[in-house]
Amino acid sequence: MSTELSPQRLRATLTAAVDASLEAQGLSSPNPPVGAVILDADGTVAGVGHTQPVGGPHAEVMALRVAGERARGGTAVVTLEPCNHTGRTGPCSQALLDAGIGRVYYGVADPNPQAAGGASTLVAAGVSVHGGADLDPTLTDIVESGPLRTWLHRQRTGRPLVTVKMAATVDGRIAAPDGTSRWITGPRARAHAHEQRGRIDAIIVGTGTVVADDPALTARTPDGDLRPHQPTRVILGTREIGSGAKIFDDAAPTIQVRSHDPRAVLDALDDALWVLVEGGPSIIGAFFDTDLVDEVDLYLAPAVLGAGPAAVDMASTSTIADLRRFVFGEPQRLGDDLLITLRR
Amino acid sequence: MSTELSPQRLRATLTAAVDASLEAQGLSSPNPPVGAVILDADGTVAGVGHTQPVGGPHAEVMALRVAGERARGGTAVVTLEPCNHTGRTGPCSQALLDAGIGRVYYGVADPNPQAAGGASTLVAAGVSVHGGADLDPTLTDIVESGPLRTWLHRQRTGRPLVTVKMAATVDGRIAAPDGTSRWITGPRARAHAHEQRGRIDAIIVGTGTVVADDPALTARTPDGDLRPHQPTRVILGTREIGSGAKIFDDAAPTIQVRSHDPRAVLDALDDALWVLVEGGPSIIGAFFDTDLVDEVDLYLAPAVLGAGPAAVDMASTSTIADLRRFVFGEPQRLGDDLLITLRR
Repeated sequence: MSTELSPQRLRATLTAAVDASLEAQGLSSPNPPVGAVILDADGTVAGVGHTQPVGGPHAEVMALRVAGERARGGTAVVTLEPCNHTGRTGPCSQALLDAGIGRVYYGVADPNPQAAGGASTLVAAGVSVHGGADLDPTLTDIVESGPLRTWLHRQRTGRPLVTVKMAATVDGRIAAPDGTSRWITGPRARAHAHEQRGRIDAIIVGTGTVVADDPALTARTPDGDLRPHQPTRVILGTREIGSGAKIFDDAAPTIQVRSHDPRAVLDALDDALWVLVEGGPSIIGAFFDTDLVDEVDLYLAPAVLGAGPAAVDMASTSTIADLRRFVFGEPQRLGDDLLITLRR
Repeated sequence: MSTELSPQRLRATLTAAVDASLEAQGLSSPNPPVGAVILDADGTVAGVGHTQPVGGPHAEVMALRVAGERARGGTAVVTLEPCNHTGRTGPCSQALLDAGIGRVYYGVADPNPQAAGGASTLVAAGVSVHGGADLDPTLTDIVESGPLRTWLHRQRTGRPLVTVKMAATVDGRIAAPDGTSRWITGPRARAHAHEQRGRIDAIIVGTGTVVADDPALTARTPDGDLRPHQPTRVILGTREIGSGAKIFDDAAPTIQVRSHDPRAVLDALDDALWVLVEGGPSIIGAFFDTDLVDEVDLYLAPAVLGAGPAAVDMASTSTIADLRRFVFGEPQRLGDDLLITLRR
């Protein structure tokens, strides 16, 4: 019989499961990006896995495959309650029982009634199960602030998590008056932004940005190669975009939503868990104006320009009472730049 | 005979001397803000001191007074090489000898030929002296990035260190379109800004800011009381300011420099080691434009406005090549806000 994990060991293993789930982001949508770690009966890591693209195995099954016979009498640590649902894949609760897992920890209970019940099935079969509200709340926080937050957000609100991306000087300029903006932020910040594009479902820009900059909006490695996952490119606005624009190349799907209403674009993305709004300023302003911004990623350069546009243009703002407040996360250094995150 | 300090002990004691020198900032100008710690023969802290206002005792003498007889056979740790100069006060090198100090550490050699030579005097009298280039460079850094940097900067450049202060949203707005700006940043950030006003020699604003906001520009405690040291208030610009303006109250001296040239205001402040430029945007822009900005303190609020002026207005900027680059320090959390510092 597998023994209970010490609090430190549980924290470390759950963190490893969250790290594994990072690889599922973007790939797993609309399924939750889950991570799983299987420990053998001695408590040694025997397998790690994450959710595969729709129709493929879930995280538990991937981790069990790696663990093989070592899973027998072992422990599973999963970010989300194992599913009980026979969809395109069999239920994970049954896969854990078949593998002979004796104990299961999960970070968050499944709020989806179709898939929930995995914990009860496991308990009924004699497995020791600890999860959701049973856990130390700081452990639940590790999961709820990780990749799974996008899917949990969609479950709660019916729409994807919306992150606004800005890259600016400390005086808030995103470009010079002549429109030039290259290299405001450095290579580490740009690489980070491309890594994030490789984890999202859709990237949203206005027609103005497409016409002015002709961006490809693909997710690339520092060497310029395409990343395995590409977000859907979404153009918001009514202006006609020529078919020769880079955004219409074969690297990723592209759709145009002929509206200026941010709600219309989110409605059009019914499979998306996480979308990134990259600009321009009035598109970003429209998302703030309709209270649809959940997070902001500000790449801040240690530089001053003294003129040029700001990242957000919100026509409705007239007085200080129109201030929209968020909460800062931990600033992160990216080369010479800082990544400053805001959440609700 | 006092023994050599271990590297850890030296680092901790020098850091304590730097902390003591914080109290001298603003008070000691134009003398250097120095801190000193006296350890007794057993290595226990016997006295701590900092430079007093002009005409008063230097840091070493203050620390020796506290230590009294315990200084005999002890060690002095000072941020700056002890002076050898009989000015309004006697030379510190002699005071250390009179007190029977056996060993002296100092962070930075005195670059001022009139005052230098203290180390040689001490060595000639048989004291063990370690300082400046003899020290681990990371120890010298602790001192050179501390309060003494303002005085070292004045020695090297002939002008005060110039810090620009901004308080803005993440989209770079310092006020709403109607001019309202109260409470963009929170109480911790405002308290920090007042603490800093209490350490500087002069605070510089344009006539536009005086006319628009009628600021007092005093350094106050969170309770609203005046701090012991008040910076000189400097108005830059040719516009006439009514004598009823708060900036002309009795709380601190005020001068107006009738020019738009930042060099003119620095020339007028020939005793100042450290000045703070608070605005408005075109005054700040003029300081960047003349390459006179050494540091930026950005108080960043976790908020978005979407309209309103930026902190820096520089008419000369047209393209991205006009970007002025600095280096970020470590971000610091102040309540809900962040303090982001830039240095050259």
